[in-house]
Formats: sequence, C-alpha cells, structure tokens
Amino acid sequence: MAKKSVCIVGSGNWGSAIAKIIGNSVKNSSLFEEKVLMWMFEEQVDGRNLTEIVNTDHENVKYLPGVKLPTNVVAIPDLTAACKNADILVFVLPHQFVDKTCKTMEAHMKKDAVAISLIKGFAITDHGIKLISEIISENLHKIPCAVMMGANLAGEVANEMFCESTIGCKNEEMGQMLKTLFEAPYFRCTVVEDACTVECCGALKNVVGIGAGIVDGMKYGDNTKAAVIRLGLMEMMKFIEVFMAGSQCKMETFFESCGIADLVATCHGGRNRMLGEAVVSSKKTIRELEKEILKGQSFQGPLVAKEIHDMLEKRDMLKRFPLFVAVHKICKREMDPSLFIDCLRDHPEHME
Amino acid sequence: MAKKSVCIVGSGNWGSAIAKIIGNSVKNSSLFEEKVLMWMFEEQVDGRNLTEIVNTDHENVKYLPGVKLPTNVVAIPDLTAACKNADILVFVLPHQFVDKTCKTMEAHMKKDAVAISLIKGFAITDHGIKLISEIISENLHKIPCAVMMGANLAGEVANEMFCESTIGCKNEEMGQMLKTLFEAPYFRCTVVEDACTVECCGALKNVVGIGAGIVDGMKYGDNTKAAVIRLGLMEMMKFIEVFMAGSQCKMETFFESCGIADLVATCHGGRNRMLGEAVVSSKKTIRELEKEILKGQSFQGPLVAKEIHDMLEKRDMLKRFPLFVAVHKICKREMDPSLFIDCLRDHPEHME
Repeated sequence: MAKKSVCIVGSGNWGSAIAKIIGNSVKNSSLFEEKVLMWMFEEQVDGRNLTEIVNTDHENVKYLPGVKLPTNVVAIPDLTAACKNADILVFVLPHQFVDKTCKTMEAHMKKDAVAISLIKGFAITDHGIKLISEIISENLHKIPCAVMMGANLAGEVANEMFCESTIGCKNEEMGQMLKTLFEAPYFRCTVVEDACTVECCGALKNVVGIGAGIVDGMKYGDNTKAAVIRLGLMEMMKFIEVFMAGSQCKMETFFESCGIADLVATCHGGRNRMLGEAVVSSKKTIRELEKEILKGQSFQGPLVAKEIHDMLEKRDMLKRFPLFVAVHKICKREMDPSLFIDCLRDHPEHME
Repeated sequence: MAKKSVCIVGSGNWGSAIAKIIGNSVKNSSLFEEKVLMWMFEEQVDGRNLTEIVNTDHENVKYLPGVKLPTNVVAIPDLTAACKNADILVFVLPHQFVDKTCKTMEAHMKKDAVAISLIKGFAITDHGIKLISEIISENLHKIPCAVMMGANLAGEVANEMFCESTIGCKNEEMGQMLKTLFEAPYFRCTVVEDACTVECCGALKNVVGIGAGIVDGMKYGDNTKAAVIRLGLMEMMKFIEVFMAGSQCKMETFFESCGIADLVATCHGGRNRMLGEAVVSSKKTIRELEKEILKGQSFQGPLVAKEIHDMLEKRDMLKRFPLFVAVHKICKREMDPSLFIDCLRDHPEHME
C-alpha cells in the first residue's frame, strides 16, 4: 500500500505543537510519508518570511517560540500546493477561516483524502448547530472528517508533558489510522465513534471556563469551583442531548479526555478562565480585555455563550441553562459577576 | 406526625460544619425537633471542657475555630444520652471509631431510627469491601443507613461558600427527608438511589488526590493533571464495577457531586493532594509527613491505597489499576515519584 501523505492546514500555536508530534510520528513509518507539509499564512518576522524561518531554523518563532520542530515538517505558503497531494488533511486554524480555506482547497485536493479537525467551536444557523467537521466535509467533496479534542494546552504538549486526547471518528479503521499518526509517548489517544459529542465538548467547555474564572475572581474556594465545573458539565450534556439528539451522543464520551479532562484543564489553566477572572477584577468590556490579554485575538467563550444564549432564547429554554446564560450576561456586562452563584442556587439539576 | 429528633455522632471539623447547617435547617421546621444533640468526645481546652465551650460560646474552638454554631446545637459528652431519643443519627467521625461507637449505642437507641454516614473510607475484609454504612447498619439493628458525600471541604462549607453534595439513599422518601434536613442556600443536595457508588467514591478519591499532588510536586502542567484526574476516575469506576458489581452501580452517579466534583476539589484543595506534593519535595516517610502536616492524624489516601493494593495483588489484578498501584508504591517509598507518569503511559484505558 502506498504511504499516506499528511498536510497540516494551519500553523498557529496548536498547529505547530501538533506538527511536532506528527513530524516525529511519521519518521520511519511504513504507513505515512516522511515529509509533512504545513500550510502557513505568510508573515514577516524581523524582515524574513515566517515559512523561511520555520524551514531553516525549524522553529515557529511567532506562534510557538522556543520549541524545535522536526526537520521533515516543511512550511509552505501556497495552500493549493500544500494540499494537492495530501491523503490526510489536518485542520487546525481559527474557525472563522474554515469556510474560505476549504473553498480554496476544493478544486485542487485529492477526492479520496480524509480530514480531521482540531478546531474548537461550532456555527449556529437557523436550523440549529452546524459542526466545523460538517462544514469541512460539505465543502470538500463530502470526504469523511474526524475530530480530535482533549486536555491539550498547546504549550504543554509542545514541551512533551504527558496528556491524553480523544479522536472522534465514525469509521473505526480510519480512527485507528489517525491514532497511529497522532500518538506519542507523551500524547495518548483514545478513539470513540461518537464524534459529535467530542466536537461539541470542545466548543462548550470554554463557556464553563469563563464561569470557573468568575469563581476564582470572586475568591470562592475549591468546593464552589467544583460545583460550577459539575453544573457546567451537566449543562453541556443537556445541551448536546437537546440539540444533537439525532446523533445519538453517548454519556461515556464525557468521561474521555475531550469531556471531563479538557473541562478541568480549561477551568484551571485556559485563557477563557483568565477572562472570567478579569471580568470580575476590572470594569472593561470583553473587547477591551481581548485587546489587553490576547492582543486583539478573540476569546472563544463569549462568542459561543452569545450564540447559545440567542438560540436558547428563541426556543424559550433559557431557564434550563442558568450557568450558560449567566456567563453570557456577565460577559455582556448586563449582570454583575457577584450574582453568578445566585443563578446556580436553584439549578434544575437540584430539583429532581 | 411527631417531629423527628436529630443526633450528630461526631464533632470534628466536618461534624461541626454540618452541625451548623442542621442547626439552622431545623429551626421553625414542622418536620424536625429544634434541639439538635451533638455527641462530643470530651476534651480540655485551656482548662475548660470542650462541650461547655460549645454550649456557652457556641464555637468548636478546637476543630472549627472562628465559626459560630447555632445555639440550638447542644454538645453532650455522653454517647448513650445523646443517641437515646434520636430518630435520625448523623455519623461523622473517623472511621476507625465507627465499630466501637455503634456497639456503645446499640442497646440505648431507638430501634426505628435511621442513620446517614458522612464518613469517608471503607473496610477491606477477606470477602472484599465492607462499606461503613453496612457496618453501621449491621451493628445497629439493621436500621437503614444512607450516605452523603460531595465536594465539601469543611472550612469552606462552614464559611457558607456555595457547594453541592450527593445523598445516596435506597429509600426515596427517606432520601427526600434527608435532603430537607441538609439543604441550605449554600449547600445543595441531590438524592440518588445508588448509595454504594456514592460511598465508594468518597473513599477512592483520596488515592487519586495523592496522584494529583505528585503531578503538582513534579511541576507538570494542567494537561497532565487533568489526565491523572481522568485516569484516576476511570480506575475508580473500574474498581467499583469489579468489586461492587452486585450493587448495580450506575455511571450517572459519577457525574454527581460525590463523583467528578469531589474528585476535582480533592485534586486541587484536599490534604491528600498536599501529601502527594510533599512526597515529591521531601524524603520523609508518610508517618513523618503525617506528624508534620496533620499533627499525628492519619492521611486517608495511603491507607486506602494500601488496602486496594493488597486486595488487587491477591486477585492478580494489579495491571488493571496502574495509577492506584503507583500511588501506593510511591507512598511506601518503594518507587520514586518521578516514575509516576511512566506508569500511566500504557494505561489499559488507552489500549481499546
């Protein structure tokens, strides 16, 4: 069988960390081509092209400084050239670029390629939730698109600190192939069929992460934080059950790394947690805090919280998700953060 | 219907925090007697009896200093007098005293009383695991004994920081009655039938808490800690499934406060976590660390880890629980803490 060629579509913080894993994983492999292409939006750093820096110094000095990338990972600024021979497309870029990126690739890629999305988030349409993996698949000749999510803060993965991740893939053989591609001694993958839950967890956890940050900002203790994490998880489960019922989501999936582990890591080390804390300690708007903390990038949590809120409001279901709703209102400065816990005292989970 | 009288059997840190909740809860209640007796092992503090201090100053200055107890909570040093009129017995004392305490109570108590155990831990006999609630029930005329466990660090509960707890009770009506007794605006209870899982979680989480402390001591990041918490939960579930199969434990129960929430709180704020961290940073034995950190009291985690280890060894099942086993060996100083993560790289959970 011909070796499979891998292209990484994206090259930020997480993309570069995953490029390090993949680059090492394919070396001396009987399954994968040794050369891994990484599509990189060209930027200038100190007068040099970023692709040139990556290919010469083997370091993404802008998005993952201090970490050496394997020499077989080759950065390439031309998207169509990057994807045209790929058998496996690894999507790892901000979700607002997915649509446009796919449209550029569509005419040039192999029709029998497979994809995997590492992108957190989902789109909300008039018909409900649209998963990023669906957008990729629909834009790209209906190729299968798996997902990978877990407690994987990029910096720690890049520094080879042990962690786990969950691959959600409806096809078992493809799932096992992807596990071979992504696993490292410090990065352990499990494969589950319930890809929909895996992907939804990746989007929803950031809303709970803000809630955890609010608890920290208010100087509550570990009990309260644990309660917020748990109630947040209950709302995630309920949300997926209500809006994804057709996909037969499984309770077991929440016990995977994509579920509780990612949630716990997000609520202790993620940047949405940091945002929640900042919302308590300052009077600034989310926009101002983004400029200050993320240098203009967007926090994901408030966006997802707003989309969820609007969707729930339309369906008259706000009362079933008091944590999600409170996080949204606090982010919008429509509610004082000190009222957050009061919103949880009569949570539907306590009424049974 | 006659009002029910409550006796709290125990008066330590957690016992006093729960006395505050119960004392307030029964005030003006149509269900419960206003006077709540709290059995207290008599001690001298600055030349005064501790019971006298509690009943005069309404503060347990030794075990919960700085927190006012309701004046209707009355400390009493005589166990038989404390329990003789009680309809509800709330057990909250170190588990090594349960057997002897029950034997003293047995002849004097009401035969139709009910009990609830807030005690973490279990006994291991030649026939397997023996739950504390079973020991209480068997010693006391087979009265029903519910349990309550959750993310409830005593100091935070005493300071009225919001948290949740899980009541495990096989009888629904009794469960709802106990919920009424224990609930406060800052202390929300859910009731589940699967009392066995609730109780087992309370014992097993401390072993995982030591593991989380080891991760902290080794300066690993949030990803690794999340993975240890998740793998620890998987071993808790597997352990309960294997050794408690007859009790029909339910996966849902692990999503209650007694499950993930208590585990997360224990792994971030509990004293077994502190022990795990100390095991890395010092070369002292557990015994010496107990003297230093707990002034001679016992950490629960190492005891449970040892019991589990011996039980697994006898049944040739050590390989299925690498985290539990590694925690035990590290506590015994038979393994260097730096090898902890290596024991998890090929965890059975990753092999599916």
